[in-house]
Amino acid sequence: MSVSVAFIGLGAMGYRMAAHLPKAFQSVWVWNRSFEKAEQHAKTYGTQAVSIEQATQADIIFSCLPTSRQVEDIIQAHPPKAGAIWVDCTSGEPESAKRMVEFLKTYQADFLDAPVSGQTIGAEKGTLTVMIGGDQAAFERAYPAIETFGGLIKHVGDAGAGFAVKAVNNMLLAVHLWAAAEGFTALKASGVDLNSALECINASSGKSGVTETTLPQRILNRSFPLTFALPLLAKDTGIALNLAQQAKLPTPLLSLIQNLIQAANLTAAPDSDFSAAVKLYEDWTKITIQ
Amino acid sequence: MSVSVAFIGLGAMGYRMAAHLPKAFQSVWVWNRSFEKAEQHAKTYGTQAVSIEQATQADIIFSCLPTSRQVEDIIQAHPPKAGAIWVDCTSGEPESAKRMVEFLKTYQADFLDAPVSGQTIGAEKGTLTVMIGGDQAAFERAYPAIETFGGLIKHVGDAGAGFAVKAVNNMLLAVHLWAAAEGFTALKASGVDLNSALECINASSGKSGVTETTLPQRILNRSFPLTFALPLLAKDTGIALNLAQQAKLPTPLLSLIQNLIQAANLTAAPDSDFSAAVKLYEDWTKITIQ
Amino acid sequence: MSVSVAFIGLGAMGYRMAAHLPKAFQSVWVWNRSFEKAEQHAKTYGTQAVSIEQATQADIIFSCLPTSRQVEDIIQAHPPKAGAIWVDCTSGEPESAKRMVEFLKTYQADFLDAPVSGQTIGAEKGTLTVMIGGDQAAFERAYPAIETFGGLIKHVGDAGAGFAVKAVNNMLLAVHLWAAAEGFTALKASGVDLNSALECINASSGKSGVTETTLPQRILNRSFPLTFALPLLAKDTGIALNLAQQAKLPTPLLSLIQNLIQAANLTAAPDSDFSAAVKLYEDWTKITIQ
Amino acid sequence: MSVSVAFIGLGAMGYRMAAHLPKAFQSVWVWNRSFEKAEQHAKTYGTQAVSIEQATQADIIFSCLPTSRQVEDIIQAHPPKAGAIWVDCTSGEPESAKRMVEFLKTYQADFLDAPVSGQTIGAEKGTLTVMIGGDQAAFERAYPAIETFGGLIKHVGDAGAGFAVKAVNNMLLAVHLWAAAEGFTALKASGVDLNSALECINASSGKSGVTETTLPQRILNRSFPLTFALPLLAKDTGIALNLAQQAKLPTPLLSLIQNLIQAANLTAAPDSDFSAAVKLYEDWTKITIQ
Repeated sequence: MSVSVAFIGLGAMGYRMAAHLPKAFQSVWVWNRSFEKAEQHAKTYGTQAVSIEQATQADIIFSCLPTSRQVEDIIQAHPPKAGAIWVDCTSGEPESAKRMVEFLKTYQADFLDAPVSGQTIGAEKGTLTVMIGGDQAAFERAYPAIETFGGLIKHVGDAGAGFAVKAVNNMLLAVHLWAAAEGFTALKASGVDLNSALECINASSGKSGVTETTLPQRILNRSFPLTFALPLLAKDTGIALNLAQQAKLPTPLLSLIQNLIQAANLTAAPDSDFSAAVKLYEDWTKITIQ
Repeated sequence: MSVSVAFIGLGAMGYRMAAHLPKAFQSVWVWNRSFEKAEQHAKTYGTQAVSIEQATQADIIFSCLPTSRQVEDIIQAHPPKAGAIWVDCTSGEPESAKRMVEFLKTYQADFLDAPVSGQTIGAEKGTLTVMIGGDQAAFERAYPAIETFGGLIKHVGDAGAGFAVKAVNNMLLAVHLWAAAEGFTALKASGVDLNSALECINASSGKSGVTETTLPQRILNRSFPLTFALPLLAKDTGIALNLAQQAKLPTPLLSLIQNLIQAANLTAAPDSDFSAAVKLYEDWTKITIQ
Repeated sequence: MSVSVAFIGLGAMGYRMAAHLPKAFQSVWVWNRSFEKAEQHAKTYGTQAVSIEQATQADIIFSCLPTSRQVEDIIQAHPPKAGAIWVDCTSGEPESAKRMVEFLKTYQADFLDAPVSGQTIGAEKGTLTVMIGGDQAAFERAYPAIETFGGLIKHVGDAGAGFAVKAVNNMLLAVHLWAAAEGFTALKASGVDLNSALECINASSGKSGVTETTLPQRILNRSFPLTFALPLLAKDTGIALNLAQQAKLPTPLLSLIQNLIQAANLTAAPDSDFSAAVKLYEDWTKITIQ
Repeated sequence: MSVSVAFIGLGAMGYRMAAHLPKAFQSVWVWNRSFEKAEQHAKTYGTQAVSIEQATQADIIFSCLPTSRQVEDIIQAHPPKAGAIWVDCTSGEPESAKRMVEFLKTYQADFLDAPVSGQTIGAEKGTLTVMIGGDQAAFERAYPAIETFGGLIKHVGDAGAGFAVKAVNNMLLAVHLWAAAEGFTALKASGVDLNSALECINASSGKSGVTETTLPQRILNRSFPLTFALPLLAKDTGIALNLAQQAKLPTPLLSLIQNLIQAANLTAAPDSDFSAAVKLYEDWTKITIQ
C-alpha cells in the first residue's frame, strides 16, 4: 500500500515545496486556508486538493504556516492517525515543538520540527536547508519525503532543536543586517564609494550573507522585494531571545538587535521585506544606503 | 634606471608581503626595528636589508606597522624624496592618512592608505585584498608593486577611504564574532549539537566569515591561534567608531561591540588572538563554546 | 467578632512588617518555613505562631516570599476561606497576580498584589511604600492592616499593577546603579575626586537614589552590606523586561541593563548585595569605585 | 584699587548669573555678541556694557557660551592681562580646559573650568552648583566672585575636572531620562496609572532627578519648555563619552545612551528641550508618555 503525504499551508514557501512531493509519492494531498490555492496547486503539479480532515489523516503531514500557534490549532482540532509523522516546516517555537511531541504521543504519532532556509528560490529548486529536531527514527522515516525539497538535511537534536537553530540563524541575519546598515552608513558619510567597499569586504573577513546577498540585491538597489516579511523576522528574533532567556543567559547584543528590529517593525510600512529594517536607521541618519 | 622599492615593518604580514616584491623589482630594500628580521628576509628572499635612512629614499615605500602613530613618526623623521609614493598597509586611522597626504605634499611625494585583508595565509600566497584611498594617479603608479601581493586591489576613494573600509570590515568581523558567541551559547544551553547547527547556518542566511572560518577553525576546536592580536581588533573597532562619531552618526550596535571588545581585551590573557574575545562571554555564562 | 490577620514569610522584610500588625489587630498569626522564626516572632511581638493550615484561614493573609512561584504553591495547596483577602507583598510577577485573582474567585476570596519598597529600615519604622494592584473594594477593606507598616499606600491599578510598578522601580534602580558605575569610573580615570564629584552631582540634575544613597553608603565605602540580594534584583529586572516584551515594546536600554545585571549575578560571589553588581564592571576596568 | 569683573555671554544662564556680581563688585562689565542684551543688562542691573576688548582686560573674566570652541576663539583673539583669572562657566570639554590653562600661562593668567548646574531658576536665585577644576590658588582668589551666584561651590580637581563632572552629571541625566521613558511606557502599556506609579517610585529606590522633576514638570504634562536645548545635551553626552574613551574604558550603557540621544537630536524639531528626547521613543512605540 502506498504512502500518503500531505502539505498544509501553501504560502510562498509551501507552494513551491509541495510541488516536489509528486516526484517521490503517488498520493500527495494539499490543503490551504484560501482553498483556490490548493486547487491551483493540484492543477499545476498533479497533487490533490483535499479537506483539512483528509489532509491530517495522511501518513506524513507537512505544515508550513506563519507561526506555531496556527500549527497547534490545526493539530489539536485534527490530530493525525496512529503511526503518522507530522513534519512542521514553520519557523516555530522550540517550546511548541516540545508540547506537540507530548500531545501527539497520546495519538501514537510523531512530531518533527523541521524549519527550512533558502528562500523561495531554494524552495523552487528543491535545495532548501532543513534543520530537524525530534525523534531519530521518525526523522529517518520522514527522510525520503523531506529529501524531495531539501539540499542539506540535518538532524540537529531533540524536539525543538530545529526551531532553535532556525531562530538563531535568523537572529544572526538580523545582527548582520543592522551592522551592515551602521557600517556602510559610516562609510558613506566619510565619502567612500559603497560598491567598491562592498567588493572589498566581501573578499575579506567582515563578509556575511548580508553583505554578499542582501545588501547588493535588496538594499543598495533600493528594491526591498517582499520575500521574507519583516514581522516574521521580528518574531524569529523574539524566539531566539526567548531561547537565551530560558537558559538565563545574558545576551546584550541579541537583546539590542531584537529591540531594534522590533522598533523597525513597529514603524515600517505594511508588507515590508525584512531588509527594510534598515529604513529605521536611515530615518535617524537622513543618509540613504545606496 | 630601475625603480627601487622598500618595505618597512616585517611583522607576520609584512614579512610575507615583502617576499613577493622581488618578482617584479630588482632593488627591494627591507627594514625592521629588530634588524635581524630584515637580514633574515634578505637571505631568504633575495632582498636587501638597509638602514631606515636608505629605505625611506626608495621610489615606492611600503609600511606595515601596528598603528598609524608609528608610521607618522617614521615619515616625519625620514620624509621621502620628491616623486616618491608612500604606500601604508597598516590598519590605520583615516585622519592620519589625511595628515600624511598634506605633510608629504610639501615634499612633493604621495601617500596612499592601502590596508590589506586576508591574514598571513593571503600574504603568503599573494592574494590579499587591498583597499586603497588617495590620489588616483599615485594609485596607478604604485599598482605594479601592490599587485605582487594583492588579489583584489581596489581604489575606494580619497585619502583615508582605504583605512575606513578596513576599519569597518574589522568592526563587522567583531560584530559577527560576538553575535556567534551569544547565538551558539544559546543553542548549546538548549542542548543543540553545535557542529550540526554550524553546518546548517553556513548553508543559510545567517552565515558570515566568522561562522564559516573563525568558529570552526579557532573557537570550536579551542585552538585560538595567534594570527591577529585582540588588541589590534580593539584598536580597529575604535577607528570604525571614530569614523561614525566624526559624522555624528548614532551607532548603537557598533558602540556596544566596541565596548565589549574593549572589555574583552582588558580582561584577556597576553598575546590573545582576536577570536579569544569570546572568552569574556564564556566567563559570564560558564558555558564553553565547543 | 474580631478580624484575624496572618503573615506568611518572616524574612528580613516580613519579620519586621508583621511586628506592626498587633498595633491594630488582636489575632495576629505568623508562619514561616523555618518555624523557629515564627516562634521567636511570637515571643518578641506578641503574635501567635500557627500552622500553615491555620494561617491561610485568616480574614486577611499577608505573604512576603522570594518569588511568585512560592506564593502560588501555598495558595494552591491551602486556599483561603470565602471573604478572605490575600495581600501578597512579594516582589512578584504581574501574570501571577492575574492568575491568583482568577484562582481565588472560585473561592470567593480576593487577591491584592502589594509589593513594598523602603528596605529593612522602612519595614522597621513602618514607613514602607506599598504599591497595590487589584480590586478597589478589597484594597479598602485591607487598608487598615496595610497601614500598620505602610507610609505611602497607593492603589495603582488592576491586578498585577502593583507588581509592575515595583519591577519598574527596581529596573530603574539597576539602570541608575550601572550608570553610576560607568560614570564615576570615567571620572576616577580622569583624576577627579569622587566624593567631591558626588556632592556636586547630588546637588544637580544627574542625581538619583543611587547617587544619594547606594553609592556613598554601600559602594564608595566598599561595605556592600547584604540587605537586598543581587539574585533578587536580577529576577526583578527580568520581570520588568517581561512586562515590556508582553507589550511588544522595544526597550534597548532596559534590555541592556537586564543583561548586565544577569551577567553580574552569574559571576558574583554568593550572598552578594545588589550593589555588588558594580564589581563586574570593576573586573573589566581594573578600577575600583572608591 | 578696586577689582574689575567681566561677564562674557549673556544667554539664559549668563544673563541671570551676571546680575548677582554688582552685589560684591563695583566695576562689573558685561559683553554679548548681540550687544543690545548687554545694554539691557546694564540698564536693569547697574552693570556696564563694554567692548570685548575691554571685557577681556578685567581682573576676573567669566564666560558662559554654548561650546568650548567659542570660548577658545575669544581667548585667543583677546588674551587677558597678566594676573587675571578666566572663569569659564560653559559646559565645556576637559581637553579645552587643559589647552587654555597652557595658553594662558604664557600670559601669566589663570584659567578655571567652572561649569554650573541648577538651570535658570538657580541662576536667578544665585544658588547654582559650581564644579571647578584648575589651580587651587586661582580658585581661592576667584571664590568671592563665584560666590555671588553659587550655592554649592566645589573644587573637584585639576584643569578639566569641573567640565568632566558636569559632563558626567548630564550623561546621568540622559540615562535617567531614557530609562524613565522606557519604564513608564511599559507601565502605561500594562494599564498602570502613571501619576500613581510616579508617586510610588519617587518614594522608593528607583527615584531620580528625572522622576522627581523632569517627568512631572515637562513630560507628563506635555509642556517640554525650552530651558536646556536638546543639542546641548547631545553635546554633553558626547563629552562624557570622550572622557571614557580617552581612558579606554568600556562603557556599554553610556555609549548606548549617547547614541540614542544623538538619534533623538537628529530627528527632533528645532528648538527642542532636552526632555523632548523621549519623543523619539514615542515614535517607535506609538504610546504617549502622559
